[in-house]
Amino acid sequence: MITIADIEQAHQRIAELVNRTPIMTSRTLDDSTGAKNYIKCENFQRVGAFKFRGVSNKLALLTEQERARGVVTHSSGNHAQAVALASSLLGIEAVVVMPRNAPQVKVEATAGYGARIVRCESSAEARVHTCQALIEKHGYTLVHPYDDDQIIAGAGTASFELINDIKWLDVLFCPVGGGGLLSGSSVATKGLCPAARVIAVEPERADDAFRSLRDDEIYPSVYPDTIADGLRTSLSPRTFEIIKQHVDQIITVTEAEIVEAMKFLWIRMKLVVEPSGAVSIAGLRKMAAAHTGQQVGAIISGGNVDLNPLFEHYDRLLEQ
Amino acid sequence: MITIADIEQAHQRIAELVNRTPIMTSRTLDDSTGAKNYIKCENFQRVGAFKFRGVSNKLALLTEQERARGVVTHSSGNHAQAVALASSLLGIEAVVVMPRNAPQVKVEATAGYGARIVRCESSAEARVHTCQALIEKHGYTLVHPYDDDQIIAGAGTASFELINDIKWLDVLFCPVGGGGLLSGSSVATKGLCPAARVIAVEPERADDAFRSLRDDEIYPSVYPDTIADGLRTSLSPRTFEIIKQHVDQIITVTEAEIVEAMKFLWIRMKLVVEPSGAVSIAGLRKMAAAHTGQQVGAIISGGNVDLNPLFEHYDRLLEQ
Repeated sequence: MITIADIEQAHQRIAELVNRTPIMTSRTLDDSTGAKNYIKCENFQRVGAFKFRGVSNKLALLTEQERARGVVTHSSGNHAQAVALASSLLGIEAVVVMPRNAPQVKVEATAGYGARIVRCESSAEARVHTCQALIEKHGYTLVHPYDDDQIIAGAGTASFELINDIKWLDVLFCPVGGGGLLSGSSVATKGLCPAARVIAVEPERADDAFRSLRDDEIYPSVYPDTIADGLRTSLSPRTFEIIKQHVDQIITVTEAEIVEAMKFLWIRMKLVVEPSGAVSIAGLRKMAAAHTGQQVGAIISGGNVDLNPLFEHYDRLLEQ
Repeated sequence: MITIADIEQAHQRIAELVNRTPIMTSRTLDDSTGAKNYIKCENFQRVGAFKFRGVSNKLALLTEQERARGVVTHSSGNHAQAVALASSLLGIEAVVVMPRNAPQVKVEATAGYGARIVRCESSAEARVHTCQALIEKHGYTLVHPYDDDQIIAGAGTASFELINDIKWLDVLFCPVGGGGLLSGSSVATKGLCPAARVIAVEPERADDAFRSLRDDEIYPSVYPDTIADGLRTSLSPRTFEIIKQHVDQIITVTEAEIVEAMKFLWIRMKLVVEPSGAVSIAGLRKMAAAHTGQQVGAIISGGNVDLNPLFEHYDRLLEQ
């Protein structure tokens, strides 16, 4: 299991590669919650998501031989773009396995960063199988989105920076999907500020981590129907063990609460945040009464969201 | 005419009241322009626009008697919200004259900050006349959106902070509407960094400042049809004089260039920016070839934009 030392080393290792993202504050949020809130904005991270941290750490630790052979991943969201950009910057060949029905915008974004796309059937099995075949044939290193100690340590550098900057936290809110960000964040928090509580926030419609922690048994996340599309994945035994040890509580939020948090972040704080990224703020707002007068941190995990509904509006204005 | 000393005093006077807004950078923007770009983000200012700076400075300088009588303004956009909030924070009664056909969202936002709304007919004459009648009857002080030295000095504190933080500028891009922000920005820039060039950016469809400077004669802005709705106002003799003295160039950008700049700011930089706020970035991108290797600043003036087209999309998702 990783320790705070792994995160500190990751922080030094990737300092040149990643953005030291800003911490945003809001008088309106502080007034409405009665707490002092510090929001670590990974929507401002490279490729628009915290994923770039873990991937950078993973790739920086590859041997010369592994770098020469290249890397592969079968995740098609923010993680794929992180693998594509970090590989490109480090001169490593990257292959991303994507289902045939993946949205064209994601395919183009990933290819745009320089990764080679290999298409497969749309089942999870086909993606893993295609990935495995490529590894066997070419000797690629798999870059898993979260079930990997170095990915977790890299993800933890966001909270590491947050706590180093503000010195003290009473409680940290963090979204949970596969548990990579939550694992890294909780190790960083307990390592730097042992008295702080770590509260994970999960969509009610994808509450597998909540149920897993309650029953001490990993439940798979089965096609959950939530707008927080980055949080649809299941815990792994690795992330589950870390979460059991370091996370104090998992709470759930409704879809309406997620949209309300997005509206607050967009309209009042002027931040472009994806639904998954707004989940921690939804939890922070829901639990506000418990943290009056406290120093509260929250991670916004990313800002990659489809803005077409908005820009179609502007395009129509231009055509008039 | 105001000097850098006025801006420095305004900066100290309003330090507790305003947000010291972040300066954002973008590797993508730097790579594509070949310059080092620093974007001063007044979309993160209180009420979501730089307007709060000038109003705070103006109100902080009122006499006890003037404070006791209250203030009035006839501008209905970001300026009205700035007057409403700053007045409320300082315990001053504020009246905002708004036309009957003003959008309900603006009326509610302004009233929400605690201002009293007085409706009038929708002509510019009716607004000025209603305002004047209130001043004569109640002794209110007029808070003009830009034709006022203290408003201009307050607006200049944004560039003052920017240059203090980054120490050196080769060129500053600033949007121009009525010229308040541009006047303050140009005095701050020439005062702190005399060799820096100040380039104003204006929508091609509202190019009254461009033509005014070219012909040395103030042209009124007559119902210009631009999405940059914050830049539809005309220069005043006061702002025109400052601009003639301190601004090196005014360039124009097309509506399509404004929308492209917005897309870049939203999609790549994750910033919620209003069309008027994106105008300076449109100019920065258009002029990039002239500033290779230079240190370039730009002011994003605000982030108050109608997000309904986007959130209707999410509301529809929730209803499914």
